[in-house]
Amino acid sequence: MKIAIIGTGLIGGSFALDLQSVFKQAVILGIDYSEAHLDEALDLGIIHQKATLENIAQADLVIVAIPVDAALETLPKVLDLVSDHALVIETGSTKRPICKLLENHPKRRNFMATHPIAGTEYSGPSAAVKGLFLGKTNIICEIEMTTFRLQEKALFLFKEIGMRIRYMEPKSHDKHIAYVSHLSHISSFMLGKTVIEKEKHERDIFDMAGSGFESTVRLAKSSPEMWTPIFKQNRKYVANSLDEYIANLQQFKNLLESEDYDAIYDEMHGVNRIREILNGMGKKV
Amino acid sequence: MKIAIIGTGLIGGSFALDLQSVFKQAVILGIDYSEAHLDEALDLGIIHQKATLENIAQADLVIVAIPVDAALETLPKVLDLVSDHALVIETGSTKRPICKLLENHPKRRNFMATHPIAGTEYSGPSAAVKGLFLGKTNIICEIEMTTFRLQEKALFLFKEIGMRIRYMEPKSHDKHIAYVSHLSHISSFMLGKTVIEKEKHERDIFDMAGSGFESTVRLAKSSPEMWTPIFKQNRKYVANSLDEYIANLQQFKNLLESEDYDAIYDEMHGVNRIREILNGMGKKV
Repeated sequence: MKIAIIGTGLIGGSFALDLQSVFKQAVILGIDYSEAHLDEALDLGIIHQKATLENIAQADLVIVAIPVDAALETLPKVLDLVSDHALVIETGSTKRPICKLLENHPKRRNFMATHPIAGTEYSGPSAAVKGLFLGKTNIICEIEMTTFRLQEKALFLFKEIGMRIRYMEPKSHDKHIAYVSHLSHISSFMLGKTVIEKEKHERDIFDMAGSGFESTVRLAKSSPEMWTPIFKQNRKYVANSLDEYIANLQQFKNLLESEDYDAIYDEMHGVNRIREILNGMGKKV
Repeated sequence: MKIAIIGTGLIGGSFALDLQSVFKQAVILGIDYSEAHLDEALDLGIIHQKATLENIAQADLVIVAIPVDAALETLPKVLDLVSDHALVIETGSTKRPICKLLENHPKRRNFMATHPIAGTEYSGPSAAVKGLFLGKTNIICEIEMTTFRLQEKALFLFKEIGMRIRYMEPKSHDKHIAYVSHLSHISSFMLGKTVIEKEKHERDIFDMAGSGFESTVRLAKSSPEMWTPIFKQNRKYVANSLDEYIANLQQFKNLLESEDYDAIYDEMHGVNRIREILNGMGKKV
């Protein structure tokens, strides 16, 4: 069995490490636009061989884990080149554009659109970790568009690496992920920006920062290469979520200026039920 | 030696646990508006005896770790009652109002205004942990207003429990803490609110939430009892920081709507230097 990993970073690299355990005899080919990343992935034992798209016809399984703009360019070529029995899994954070682009591709039935809800704020091969997907959710879009035999193969391997499966329409995925993922990133980036701007004049400010700030601003370490095309592809839903977020912040500020502390208390108390929601997230593994 | 802990929650309770190691012979008296908290603190070994303000004249050291509105009520009474040699340390997240209130108190020189930058999103005696302050920053305001002998005593105990000391003016403290702490809490609370409002109609949305959302929204679990009076006492600086945050979010949204992806990339890339800043925070312990 041959497995090709296109994009040997956090997600592709972590898939490669897990798949080595599931398919012990498999040869893992690595494909990446960055030669340095490929060398690193080879050194780290993430891949067995460096390869290019010219080798893709040999692959039984292809994982495509690259920025979502690059995915739109690369996936039609990959599907053109793969064998008739190959399964091609894409893992990006937006699902409508890729599903739309490929809907009439002759090899659409070899393709599966997924979004593993897993990752960290780091990127590149050195960020890859074994077991990243254990207990995490994988959202599969348009499962019925993938041929039945390859659905089975995909579900087997997701189960082996410990993922829970949810099925969604691409549009519904993109709308809701704007709130629970894309908005969090913007809120964190802009918090970082607001504090850094202040710090220009007052260098001591970060001496005062605690673990709360660190947690809230963590996502501001994320890769602009990955996130710019996500915001581009999902700009309408992201803009809607930003509108609602800004309106809530503005309303909080109005309560503060009118000194309505009972209402401020009630606001925070109402949001406190996020505790149970987050606990629920933890338990449903 | 007798130590009185007024407010046996996360901060007061953690001080009590650490002080038991520093002063092994000390008797720890617990004072709390909540009888249930006092019982819990006694059960957990955080305090040795339940007490009231009537017992405060016996104390050599008093730690006041209660919400900042309650501190304004309680501290003048505490200073009225303590002995001439007692050190009274207050630990709230705003410093101007308490320093202003006590500036002409006859026992001002027994008082030290501090803000330990330590804590979690949890509260109450069960949230107290030994070693909470190790490597953390303690901001001391108006050190010169405390008598020299009690300065020495305070600096000794902060050193023993592993804290770094920074000296600031109360006004400067309140201004900068608005950015690195208070704003983070509001950004997190309003992110939680925005997503919960969406979830009313779409119950599945939290199935899509990953560790990024969890980290960014963590502070939205915080206690409204503690945070409402902080926002009240620091409302002007908090409102300023909110204005700047909202303006940055709005500008990001404008870039998205004008599809200026180069500028969006540059925004995120610029904020990425938060990585080095956060690493610096970790190293300077």
